[in-house]
Amino acid sequence: MRQIAEPQRLRALCEEQRAQHRRVGLVPTMGFLHEGHLSLVRRARGLADFVVVTIFVNPTQFSPSEDLDRYPNDLIGDLAKLEAVGADCVFVPTRDAIYPAGFSSHVMVEGLTDVLCGASRGPGHFQGVCTVVTKLLNMVGPCSAVFGEKDYQQLRVIQRMAQDLDLPVEVVGAPTVREPDGLALSSRNAYLSPDQRQAATCLYRALQAVRARIERGGGTLSAAEAIGLAREIIEAAPEARIDYVDVRHAHTLEPLETVVVGQTVLALAVFVGRTRLIDNLTL
Amino acid sequence: MRQIAEPQRLRALCEEQRAQHRRVGLVPTMGFLHEGHLSLVRRARGLADFVVVTIFVNPTQFSPSEDLDRYPNDLIGDLAKLEAVGADCVFVPTRDAIYPAGFSSHVMVEGLTDVLCGASRGPGHFQGVCTVVTKLLNMVGPCSAVFGEKDYQQLRVIQRMAQDLDLPVEVVGAPTVREPDGLALSSRNAYLSPDQRQAATCLYRALQAVRARIERGGGTLSAAEAIGLAREIIEAAPEARIDYVDVRHAHTLEPLETVVVGQTVLALAVFVGRTRLIDNLTL
Repeated sequence: MRQIAEPQRLRALCEEQRAQHRRVGLVPTMGFLHEGHLSLVRRARGLADFVVVTIFVNPTQFSPSEDLDRYPNDLIGDLAKLEAVGADCVFVPTRDAIYPAGFSSHVMVEGLTDVLCGASRGPGHFQGVCTVVTKLLNMVGPCSAVFGEKDYQQLRVIQRMAQDLDLPVEVVGAPTVREPDGLALSSRNAYLSPDQRQAATCLYRALQAVRARIERGGGTLSAAEAIGLAREIIEAAPEARIDYVDVRHAHTLEPLETVVVGQTVLALAVFVGRTRLIDNLTL
Repeated sequence: MRQIAEPQRLRALCEEQRAQHRRVGLVPTMGFLHEGHLSLVRRARGLADFVVVTIFVNPTQFSPSEDLDRYPNDLIGDLAKLEAVGADCVFVPTRDAIYPAGFSSHVMVEGLTDVLCGASRGPGHFQGVCTVVTKLLNMVGPCSAVFGEKDYQQLRVIQRMAQDLDLPVEVVGAPTVREPDGLALSSRNAYLSPDQRQAATCLYRALQAVRARIERGGGTLSAAEAIGLAREIIEAAPEARIDYVDVRHAHTLEPLETVVVGQTVLALAVFVGRTRLIDNLTL
């Protein structure tokens, strides 16, 4: 597995692959890799001949009040996991290599980014995501780029951006990987105390309760009832504080009055202690 | 010469070229082509094996008060000129093909776009330019893209954007082509009455007067003196109304107190009647 820090070397290596008609795949990450990330690499492995994983904690997608400075990292562990799962190249740039002095360009998606995490984390969050993903796509030139469905809105925003800007890439979503008790894998789970870890199952339990209610109701449920049920379960968990619980159209993220089976996403963001966790379920 | 209207066909054709290791060149235009545009195509011809010229009057870079609806066009004439000058492909998309329903992504460059035409045409102008150029670059995948130096700020903004976003392209500037009396070629010159056409030489005369004053002064001149001299000449021309006359650093576009030979651009925007003309000179 090649380990690269310089953007120019990454670009040259990927150009070489493409010149040999090898399909390049990309998995952008912020490191501290878990089984969720590795499932993305395996997915990319099935789509491409040469899989590039990037590890970069992108400062521009964090607001000043967020956890940029304490975001967990374990580069040695990450490299071993990527080697084991069959990545061909890992790109670990410095901040200065990604944002050199004078950097002043941005990519943004309107509309889709006004709600959910865009509303709660601020307008800079998805602008930061879109800009860094555009840069990585342009450096690597992949046929496919794989993102986790746990970051549901991020996936939709990047798909919209790729379509709008004619980026020559297929943006692929891969299913959320969960702990045995349902908690979605996340690097931020490392912040949780044992009691908080226990409480954090409230997100998954809320999603499942809404699903069960819909099944019992023969497929119909109002958005208000779905939100109310989810809130009730989350609010009963110790140390849990709701950031948002929302029912949205699965593609446009527009608000819905009623759950439309197959076209609806139930999206949650919950602080457990100081740790912000997200999860979602397509109903 | 291939004539293409659909983005997907353009992308497929350019991919085919690249797969055969042919270098692709791009010249984006808004049509109503003159010798200035054709000089860009010739320049691209020297840099690439397959030259794509695009003709698209991009609505998002016009403010509501500008001349989008009366922008001149002559597609039949343009095609003949491009054929004659050796373009390989011309792409003439509809507005809906470039901006389909639901389009909501944008690319922008901060700082560089706050001054000169960015200040006078409004913040949407360069955002519109950056977004459409990003799309065209992503569709075509060129090694080089050629832009005229007459649109000096546009060239600098696009170079900045390409560098910041790691676009895999060389953004090349080509010199302004002029009428025998010095007027810079522009599609908008077609708007001028014979008297206005005469008056429009004031832009070039102002640039040359400043250059002559610097040469006489042994290379030194304050920005205020340069601006004053240029304004005097332009204000003496009938029907001429200054939009801006400015002395800026040639790369950062930051304001300068003194002309620094080799690092200074004198940039002009002047309304002659209702027609807005721009010109510049690197001092």
